Order: sequence, then structure tokens, then C-alpha cells
Amino acid sequence: MRAGNIGQLIALPILSQLFTSAVTADPLASWNTSVSKEAITRFVEAVTTQGGPEFVSPDERIAVFDNDGTLWAEQPVYFQFAFALDRVAALAPHHPDWEKSEPFRSILNGDIKTALATGEKGIVAIVAATHAGITTDQFASIADGWLGAAQHPRFNRPYAELVYQPMLELLAYLRANGFKTFIVSGGGVEFMRRFAGRVYGIPPEQVIGSSGGVRFEIGADGQPQLVKEPKVEFVDDGQGKPVGINRFIGRQPIFAFGNSDGDLEMLQYTAAGKGARFLGLIHHTDSDREWAYDRASHVGKLDKALDEATARGWTVIDMKTDWNTVFPLNAQDGQGEGK
Amino acid sequence: MRAGNIGQLIALPILSQLFTSAVTADPLASWNTSVSKEAITRFVEAVTTQGGPEFVSPDERIAVFDNDGTLWAEQPVYFQFAFALDRVAALAPHHPDWEKSEPFRSILNGDIKTALATGEKGIVAIVAATHAGITTDQFASIADGWLGAAQHPRFNRPYAELVYQPMLELLAYLRANGFKTFIVSGGGVEFMRRFAGRVYGIPPEQVIGSSGGVRFEIGADGQPQLVKEPKVEFVDDGQGKPVGINRFIGRQPIFAFGNSDGDLEMLQYTAAGKGARFLGLIHHTDSDREWAYDRASHVGKLDKALDEATARGWTVIDMKTDWNTVFPLNAQDGQGEGK
Repeated sequence: MRAGNIGQLIALPILSQLFTSAVTADPLASWNTSVSKEAITRFVEAVTTQGGPEFVSPDERIAVFDNDGTLWAEQPVYFQFAFALDRVAALAPHHPDWEKSEPFRSILNGDIKTALATGEKGIVAIVAATHAGITTDQFASIADGWLGAAQHPRFNRPYAELVYQPMLELLAYLRANGFKTFIVSGGGVEFMRRFAGRVYGIPPEQVIGSSGGVRFEIGADGQPQLVKEPKVEFVDDGQGKPVGINRFIGRQPIFAFGNSDGDLEMLQYTAAGKGARFLGLIHHTDSDREWAYDRASHVGKLDKALDEATARGWTVIDMKTDWNTVFPLNAQDGQGEGK
Repeated sequence: MRAGNIGQLIALPILSQLFTSAVTADPLASWNTSVSKEAITRFVEAVTTQGGPEFVSPDERIAVFDNDGTLWAEQPVYFQFAFALDRVAALAPHHPDWEKSEPFRSILNGDIKTALATGEKGIVAIVAATHAGITTDQFASIADGWLGAAQHPRFNRPYAELVYQPMLELLAYLRANGFKTFIVSGGGVEFMRRFAGRVYGIPPEQVIGSSGGVRFEIGADGQPQLVKEPKVEFVDDGQGKPVGINRFIGRQPIFAFGNSDGDLEMLQYTAAGKGARFLGLIHHTDSDREWAYDRASHVGKLDKALDEATARGWTVIDMKTDWNTVFPLNAQDGQGEGK
């Protein structure tokens, strides 16, 4: 026996141990053992078991996820709204008139409540001022800059670190089982695409969201460019979600996850397909580690969808008891496979 | 030496020959050796050569193709228009008033020219009558039925067999080299998705096209459904193509192929990106095997885009000389990897 072979004999049990450990490592380690976790793994095993009664071919394994409140946090305000507020402040020196006109005056005075009291008209004005009149490339740079610099007021971490570790694991687990993962969110599609690849491992073409008008033109430099216009074109929320799924994906998902009444129609539409289906809702029940809110919340209101989930036996995640970790412990290591 | 080893020694040269043959088989066999073919293979080799100056990472290898006149034929009328005309005839018994109202009266009399003379108003009426007022599922069944039964008037073959064999090979060649292939067409997205998977190997979520309004509702059976509305929502042609690419794909392609002025902005937008780019145009020059038309055609007009392609050195395919085969010889064998 040569020395090399002795080395191999010694190394073998160690390698074997490593291998076994890798194979048996829990892909959903941040999920406590619970009815919820079992519902997920049982569903995935059922649709991936070749020859089984609920087998679904890989090309039909479409999974859709809401973003705000489902993949990342949404309190105290939607993160894209925080971006818009910061953008108003950054642009204010170029708009002296904003000191006298709502909703800008209140935003600049830090009075968000009064700013929001201007209603839809005010929101449209904010979106127009912060998300339009620039090219798509310029918007991408601005969003990148904000995502890199801005800090969440409660956690003092960049917003893109306030993603849910259990959901990152779920996305990776589904992809490892042949699913194609999509975001279907009321958020702006061009905003979400700036972090969805890096943070969730979801490429731009699998991000569906609300969008504004975009105009093609040949710029002053003779190069084609796309200019963002101050008009809302598609609202990917509520009834808009199944419409968006039909328009962008073109087939019914078999797996859908949301957290609010804005996700109800997406869940209903997914549930209506033939064969095995998984419907999940995150219930925010953890004010210590995250937030606790549902029927009365101004953000992410969960009322009708909670009733329907209960009535139909959909999986409702209790954040407090179902998740042993909420946010990635270490930002460097916790941003999913797409980082 | 055991018998098994002798067998191996004999088998080895045969296996080696098979392997060499598989490796050297031309993936673009229907393309004659030409400047056009060389431009395609040179580009693909450049962007896939790791460490080379023009290397592009796989996730950025986005290729976009027009459909009508680029992947399948478009004469004597766009195939989807032929579908709409057949649909008018099928629906006529339920619409006795059509005998007295244009454009239906002329269509039912076989006078397409007069029907089209009603202009945009007539086209909108035809689209509303044939593509709306039904659920997306019902439309899918109707389109499937037509695609399976209708025959092209010149070739007496199902329309979906009048795809270009060289383009099927090009799609497969690009995918084998890590490209993600998309359709970006003025055609209706829900119509194209009924054959794009089977014929081109392109899944529904990679088909971008024009679309009408869709409404979510709970049907009489208590099940959610999507109803097609009689309004045009997005026209994916001309300036709409880069807008559609931005909306649905969210990044600039590196490879674009079209055949008409309606593809010009898509080509310009693709060309404007940094790094290596391939821009291709099919010039229909073969009235024997297909059709010959360009600057004066009512369908697939190729005028400005031809001038710009010439001026900028884009690749212009001369169908007559560049392709040794136009349509798949054997429909059973010739429908691409997605059949």
C-alpha cells in the first residue's frame, strides 16, 4: 500500500462525513419545525416526485412572491416610499417652489402624515417628481446610490439587508427543486430590479411590478434612450396581480406567497389552477424582532385575505413562532444565492 | 486481456468517430457559407470566449427576435390576421347584423381589401370581435384549434410549419451557447404563446407582444377568471419594442434580429449598448421559395431599416443566397427543440 493510498483511507471517512452533512443540511434552517414548514416541504416533495400523483413538470413549476412584507420588510413605510422622500429632499434645492406647495412642503418639514393627507393626487405628484423626467439609466444609478447609502431608521442597516432569511432559503430551496421564481409586487418594477438579482437571485425579467410610462427617443448625443414619463401605466396590486401574471408570465403559478389583502387575487388565481397548489401568507406577529400588524394597518393590511386563508386552509406563517431567524444575521453572508 | 477489454478496444474508434462527428456537425446547416453566417458565428464565439476581450457573462446573453417575417412567414397577410378572418366567419352565424356592417360585411364576402379600407377603426372592430369578450382560457383553446386545423393558402400546410428552418437552428445554436432567447413582436402575445414553446422552444414568459386589456373577475362558477377586453393596451411595434424590452426584460439585449421598419428602434436600442452587439435583418428576396418584398410592401415594409443597416454595417440576410433551406422539409422533424 503506497502512502497516497493510506492518505486516501484516512481522508475517506472525513469526506464521507462532510458529504452526508451537506446532503442532510436543512435547506430551510431558519424555519422552525411546524405545520407551516411541513406544508412547504410536503408540497415540494409531492410535485417533484416523478411518477407520483401530483408530479408537475419543471417548466410548469412557477412560483410567485409578493415583495413588500413578503420578501423584505415594509415598515414604518414602504421602502420605495422612503426612497421617494429622500429623493424629494435631494431635489429640493432645484425646486424652490416646493416650499410653498403640497405635498412637498410637508415632506421637507418632516410631516409625512400631512403630506399623505393630500391623497392620490399627492402620491402621483411625488412619483412624478422622483421617478420621472429622467432616463431609465439615470433612474437605475439613482436607485443604486440610495440602496447603497440609505439606512433603515429602526435597524440602522441598508434597506436591502432587511430581507427575510427564511424567505431567501425558501427561494433557493424552490429553485434547487426546479422552480422558476418570480416577484409579483405593487412596487415599481425598475426600482425592484436594482436589487432583486443581488439579494434574491431573481433576474430582471422575472420581476413584475407597477410601472410608469416610458418613451423611446434619440437623445442629444445621437444615442437612443428611454425616458421615464410622469404617468402611471400599470398597478400590479390586487386584481392587477393576476392580470400581471397573465401578461408577463403567461401561465398560472402553482405556488404563491403574499402577506396582505393586495395579494388575495394572486392567491385566488393560483389556487384556481388544476392539480397541487401551495398558497402562503405571512402574518406579521413579531413586534420584538420585526413588527406586528394586520387588519388595521395602513401598510400591508391583512384582513380579507386572512379570513379566506383560514377558511380555505392556506398556509399562514406566524412570524413569531415559525421563524427562528428573521433578518440575515450577517449581511455579508445572508443575501441569498444571487449576491 | 479479457474479452471485455477486446470489445472496448474495438468500440473505441467507433465511439471516437461518433463523438468527432457530433462535435463537428454544423449547428447552422441550413445557412450557406457566407458573410452573414460568418458574422453570426464570429459574434457568438467572441462573446462566449472566457477571458476574451468581448466576453459576455451568460446572464447578459439576451437575444431578441421579431416574429412575423423573422421567425415565420407573414404573407399574403399576417397569420394572426388570417386567424381573425377565419374567426369572423366562424362567429358570423351569431351576428346576423354583420351582413350589413363593415368591416364584417366585406370580410364575409371575401373582399379583404375593402374591409381593410375601413382603416384603424375597422381593425379595432375586428380585434374586438375576435380577440375579446372571452376568457384567456377560452381564447387559448380557440387559437389552438385554429393552429391545428387551418392551412396556409399557398403552401397548404398548417401556419406553424411555415417557420424558417435556419432561424430554428439559430435559436437552438444561441441557447446552446448560453443565450436566453426572447420574441419581441407586434403580434398578440396570447396568440404567439400558443405555439412559441412547441415550435421555437421559447416559453410563454419569454414571449413579448402586443396586448389588450384583461379583467380579473370571479366567474359564475365561483372560480377566478381573466376576461379579454375590447381595448388595445400595448402595441409592441416600432418605438414600442424598446419600451417592451425595458418593461418585460429589464436589460438591453446584445443580439437582435428583425425584418422590417417596425424593428428599427429595437435594433437601434440593442446597438446602443456597450460591448459587442449583433444586429440582423432578414431581407425577403426569394419569390420562388418564399416571397420577395421590401420598400413597397404593405406587410413587413423594409425601407428605413434597410438603409440604416447598410450605413451601419449590420448583417442583412439575403434569403435567396444565404439560406439553403427555408421551411422545415419535414414538419415532424423540423419544429425546433421546443416541439
